[in-house]
Amino acid sequence: MIKSKAAIAWGPGQPLSIEEVDVMPPKAGEVLVKVIASGVCHTDAFTLSGEDPEGNFPVILGHEGGGVVEAVGEGVTSVEIGDHVIPLYTPECGECKFCLSGKTNLCGKIRETQGKGLMPDGTSRFYKDGQPIHHYMGCSTFSEYTVLPEISLAKVNKDAPLEEVCLLGCGVTTGMGAVMNTAKVEEGATVAIFGLGGIGLSAIIGATMAKASRIIAIDINESKFDLARQLGATDCINPKDYEKPIQEVIVELTDGGVDYSFECIGNVDVMRSALECCHKGWGESVVIGVAGAGQEISTRPFQLVTGRVWKGSAFGGVKGRSELPGIVERYLQGEFKLNDFITHTMGLDDINEAFELMHEGKSIRSVIHFDK
Amino acid sequence: MIKSKAAIAWGPGQPLSIEEVDVMPPKAGEVLVKVIASGVCHTDAFTLSGEDPEGNFPVILGHEGGGVVEAVGEGVTSVEIGDHVIPLYTPECGECKFCLSGKTNLCGKIRETQGKGLMPDGTSRFYKDGQPIHHYMGCSTFSEYTVLPEISLAKVNKDAPLEEVCLLGCGVTTGMGAVMNTAKVEEGATVAIFGLGGIGLSAIIGATMAKASRIIAIDINESKFDLARQLGATDCINPKDYEKPIQEVIVELTDGGVDYSFECIGNVDVMRSALECCHKGWGESVVIGVAGAGQEISTRPFQLVTGRVWKGSAFGGVKGRSELPGIVERYLQGEFKLNDFITHTMGLDDINEAFELMHEGKSIRSVIHFDK
Repeated sequence: MIKSKAAIAWGPGQPLSIEEVDVMPPKAGEVLVKVIASGVCHTDAFTLSGEDPEGNFPVILGHEGGGVVEAVGEGVTSVEIGDHVIPLYTPECGECKFCLSGKTNLCGKIRETQGKGLMPDGTSRFYKDGQPIHHYMGCSTFSEYTVLPEISLAKVNKDAPLEEVCLLGCGVTTGMGAVMNTAKVEEGATVAIFGLGGIGLSAIIGATMAKASRIIAIDINESKFDLARQLGATDCINPKDYEKPIQEVIVELTDGGVDYSFECIGNVDVMRSALECCHKGWGESVVIGVAGAGQEISTRPFQLVTGRVWKGSAFGGVKGRSELPGIVERYLQGEFKLNDFITHTMGLDDINEAFELMHEGKSIRSVIHFDK
Repeated sequence: MIKSKAAIAWGPGQPLSIEEVDVMPPKAGEVLVKVIASGVCHTDAFTLSGEDPEGNFPVILGHEGGGVVEAVGEGVTSVEIGDHVIPLYTPECGECKFCLSGKTNLCGKIRETQGKGLMPDGTSRFYKDGQPIHHYMGCSTFSEYTVLPEISLAKVNKDAPLEEVCLLGCGVTTGMGAVMNTAKVEEGATVAIFGLGGIGLSAIIGATMAKASRIIAIDINESKFDLARQLGATDCINPKDYEKPIQEVIVELTDGGVDYSFECIGNVDVMRSALECCHKGWGESVVIGVAGAGQEISTRPFQLVTGRVWKGSAFGGVKGRSELPGIVERYLQGEFKLNDFITHTMGLDDINEAFELMHEGKSIRSVIHFDK
């Protein structure tokens, strides 16, 4: 057992509390990771708000981290002490029905226990004064030390700065992957991206890397437009500037609609707009944002019968252990930048400030540095 | 101008009236076709009911026909007098944005005038006592003679009996094509087919041809089950036999859901069931049925984010002029049968009986023989 500084969410809506927790040693197939940095993502805020129907409390949040292997449990062979790793909330066991299908990255191996905030054996590795604290998305990166299943770790090049590539643990991979893996946007295609948070901006990067001919960025917060353009957006549109529905505006602007669209907010009305701004005959819309509990999307089925496709993407369709290391290499080769996204850095003690900046729309990503 | 016996729909909800109409000669790019046989499809009944928001009256319905070229207009080169043809409500011009995309069969060339019940020049070729009568879906096969644009005709092998292959002009191609072209069902896949009318039964044929391992047929009318099994369904399910939603029944029956599902009814609630009975991670649901005006489909976006895909299919994604002749060849080679579908045949004089049989659920397809 070791002592670790961690941010505990004791209940929904409460500020995180910085405390010292006990971290149990890794069991068979598990790995102890020293977290170096962690992004603060909207999903952390969503769960903290209490709106997440799968939220468990008390919990150590955080799922967008980068760290170093500190110890390994029995039978662990794919990583060793000192390896640099990115925790994966979407693991990759390589042997379940999902992994073997070749059609999805949604590994099913530890889904049930992970959803309950527990390790695969049904217990926690975090304790505070003898009381177990829940894990979060199988990661819990808001702790100096955390324990993960071996299948939830991508081993990455040690040359990559963990303070930056931690963002590949969620937001950036999610946006880029949705464009490149899920939609498979081809050169010359037209693209609409709804919502210019970290995921939407990453989708712009993905569309730029895919050599899309036109990248239409849509947000009601125009302060995001400069960075969107800098990353490759060709058009920036504020729906509030138009009387008519934004899907009609985009259809007119593109002579029939875009080839691909991406919803990066979690707003079910925007999901409909994103579908309906697609071109008849082939337009595909990808839902990335996570909607509130019980909310539903709807459209006229004629939209589908006339050739539009509605799909979704989780973690960008990326298989973490087999594909994320390659994305880190592309980053190291300069294919895309990550520091554009990092608007704030701070120590764990100031993590509540990161949530405030997010709520106020002032940050893209705040990254917690554990050595600060 | 020639005289033609035709069934006129003077207004919504009225029985068809058998009358002699004047058919104008084909203009440039148009073809006069002597109709040999025509199926009576639910879409004809839908428009006749008045529920079709795009319905025009008076009109000569019918869009599932087979005929012989009687005369050609100026500049027509792809067919000649005596050729056997299947009229196409989805034409294929080969030069519009849609045809050139390689991604869809929804040719846009004459969409606007066709939707208005007119030939591409904005006029009709049918007159009754000097009053123009609307065309229907660019076909109007409930007339002994009809005029179509050249791009709306598939030239087929003369060995094929037009009284049977007329069904390839709509229902059978729609169901088979949705399975083989739109979903691209692969060998060993599991499939659920909702609604066992002509389209659903054709989807079963398509799934059998694709060598699906399990074909689950769903209908509330169990009298359809015998033929469904004969065509290849491995399971026949009546939702009324279960307390729980049918999607849950299918998910349990298939250890997580089917790989592909098809909605062949036009019921928006069934469209939802069809999506939600698909397997997480990769299940694809194809909407084929046409819903009533203004009706909407809905689901939780989580269904898409966890890997299900919602799409649609029109005329089975089949490009009529380039692909339908090959489907006729496959029929001639015995790959599938059509006479299973033909439960009734009659002359044009008895066409209202065909609509009654359909409304009573007693027919799969009634085929009008013009020589009867």
